[in-house]
Order: sequence, then C-alpha cells, then structure tokens
Amino acid sequence: MRLRNKPWADDFMRENDHIVVQNPFEWKGKWKELFDDPSKPLHLEIGSGKGQFIAGMSKQHEELNFIGIERVKSVIVGALKKVKNAETKNARLVNEDAEDLRDLFASNEVDHIYLNFSDPWPKNKHEKRRLTFHTFLDQYKDVLVPDGEITLKTDNKGFFEYSLVSFSQYGMILEDVSVDLHADEDPLNVPTEYEEKFSEKGQPIYRCKVRFNS
Amino acid sequence: MRLRNKPWADDFMRENDHIVVQNPFEWKGKWKELFDDPSKPLHLEIGSGKGQFIAGMSKQHEELNFIGIERVKSVIVGALKKVKNAETKNARLVNEDAEDLRDLFASNEVDHIYLNFSDPWPKNKHEKRRLTFHTFLDQYKDVLVPDGEITLKTDNKGFFEYSLVSFSQYGMILEDVSVDLHADEDPLNVPTEYEEKFSEKGQPIYRCKVRFNS
Repeated sequence: MRLRNKPWADDFMRENDHIVVQNPFEWKGKWKELFDDPSKPLHLEIGSGKGQFIAGMSKQHEELNFIGIERVKSVIVGALKKVKNAETKNARLVNEDAEDLRDLFASNEVDHIYLNFSDPWPKNKHEKRRLTFHTFLDQYKDVLVPDGEITLKTDNKGFFEYSLVSFSQYGMILEDVSVDLHADEDPLNVPTEYEEKFSEKGQPIYRCKVRFNS
Repeated sequence: MRLRNKPWADDFMRENDHIVVQNPFEWKGKWKELFDDPSKPLHLEIGSGKGQFIAGMSKQHEELNFIGIERVKSVIVGALKKVKNAETKNARLVNEDAEDLRDLFASNEVDHIYLNFSDPWPKNKHEKRRLTFHTFLDQYKDVLVPDGEITLKTDNKGFFEYSLVSFSQYGMILEDVSVDLHADEDPLNVPTEYEEKFSEKGQPIYRCKVRFNS
C-alpha cells in the first residue's frame, strides 16, 4: 500500500485543497485562520496514516480544529477520503515530512499534539529518530502553548516505556496513563486503523497524556 | 493463612531476634548500626509478605543492607524462615504496622524503598490508603536520602496507572518502567510469591523505578 504509486493522488489532493493544505509553510503562524472559527483550540496529529483518527476526532469534537500531517502521499489520500466522507469542516491535512515542526508552526500556535502509533525505531542506534527523543520534545514544547499537552498511543511496549521515561526526564508531567486502553472501554476513544488491527489480535494498546511543566 | 493463629510465632521471632528486630522504634536514626557493615546503603521493603523478595535480594546484593516490614504476624514468620534459610547476614525484619514511616526512620536514613504488590485499594473513596497517595510520598521523601529511589511492582493495572500519575504529579522522575516485566526476561529480577502466582496465570507484571527530584 505504502509503496504503490498513485498518479491520480496529486490531482485528487489539488481538487480538495479545502482539506489538503497547499503550500503549508506559508501558513506558519496563521493556521487558525484556515478554519471557520479561528478561536477554537488547534489539535495536531503527527502521522495521520489513513485518517480514521482525525476523521473520527473532528466529528466527535466540533469544538476543536484539527490538522493532520502525513508524509506518505499514497497514504494521505486515504485520509483525505475519510475526512471528506466525514463531512466535517474542522479538519485539514498536510502532506509534508515535518522534520522540524518549527518550520511549519510558530511558537505557542498548537494546543495539543497526538502521536499515534509512531515508528518505534527499536534499535538503540536509532534512538534519535524516535518521535519522543528529547530533540523532538524541544520542538513540541516550542510550538505548543505553555500548558500544551501530548497524547501518545502505541501498541509497542518498548516505545511506550521509552517515551514515558523520556517525557519524565524532560520534566513533563503525566496526566493520564493506560497500560491496556481497550480493557478500560473508554467510549470516547477514537481508534486508528493500526489500533483496531493490533487490538483485535489481543495485544494491549498503551496510551498516555502528558503536559509540559510551565 | 493470614487469619490463622500461630501461637508459636512470638516465641519463634524472639528466638531469632538477630533477624526480627525487637523494639524497632528504638532504632530510629540508628538502623545502619544493626548490620555488620553500617556503610552499606539501606534498602527498605514495605510489606514483605512471606519474604521471598527480601531473602532473594539480600543474597543477590551483599553490597546492600535490607529491612523488611510486615505487619501480619502469621505472615512474617514465613519471611523469617526464608531469610534464615538464605543464611544472609544483611537482612532484618520488622513486625509493625508502619502507619507513618517517620516514627521508625529518621530523615535521610533510607536509600531505596520497595513497594511490592501493595494493596491496590481500587475504590475511589479509598484513594488515601494507597501507598502511593501523596501523603505516603511525603513520608518516603522524608526518610529517603535526597536522590532516594522507589521501586514499585504490581500486577494491578489500576494501581500501577494511579501510581505513575501520582509520582509524576508529585514532581518525581521516572527512571525505568516495564509494562510487562516477565516479557523482558530480566535475569536480576527477584520475584515475590504473589508475582510468581500471577505471572504464571499469564498476567503482566508492572514495574517502575522513580526518584525524588532534589
């Protein structure tokens, strides 16, 4: 799926430029103006995949505005379809490889970040690539408001454990944690595609919510 | 087991007063002097149960001194047997209900505290009884050295999640965490009796190590 070429993808995204933001770097510092109501808190999903989470969340939370970033073109078109079908007006997608979020967002521009089933990079030598390595936390701290929160979900034990320690060593405060999310039967949880797949295999899903200590 | 009367228990403990400390409150501020080498760090287990942990740890770590507290007389005699059979000289037991550790220990007297399979008190109205409620953290902070650590193990999901959040909100730093300890195959882990029983049922064992932020 991820490797298949989709020549129609560019056309499809351009036709839906009310959802997939063109020239996203030009919106730095002005993202809230993209939405009907710029006063709503801005929630950012990093790695939106096929879009089930952002489509579901934007429907469930009309009081928020959502941006989903996904670097893989053949994947983000799936998210575009889902957001389009959800007929929500509070979700936008960005097809970029956001190596440094500070290129896309100004300081204090984002209220909440979601890290959903990020690549765990299990080898020690790849620690720097994990999205909860301290250099990424530097970015999040900068683009988030002072009391900004991060919600992380993963099925990967090692990545979850690493992330909890990394957050704490950075001085962040743990607000909520679940070591078996689907045992909690949280009616408000919006599962991602990955989450459904792994949870059905009986694997526990881990989640935590942390905030910067301002 | 816990309710059965053991009339020989008092005699057995008195006969072994080199292991079960008599008049423990009199040792406040002087605990290290009880041991052959008072220069070793002092590790304290709260709720030693039948003693498999303290017997195994004191054998594995001759560089440390150990004290195990257990309030139930019919249970601590089991711990006494285990410590006796282990033939270690660096473990002592205390048969007290330590409601406030500060009655037993002076400030900065302890280097490490173990909370093993503590009663989870799952009902919200019993939150104050959980050994990771902030009033207990006050006690631990006082009796521990400034960089003192706590290691917690439990099979109880809710108690583990609660404890992680409680530690963090108190400003403590997470040093290590496992959401499935027996999957890690840590060769140095010394299981408690409870731990073996629950792990054999396929239930995950949770562990974390935290320290106060001095």
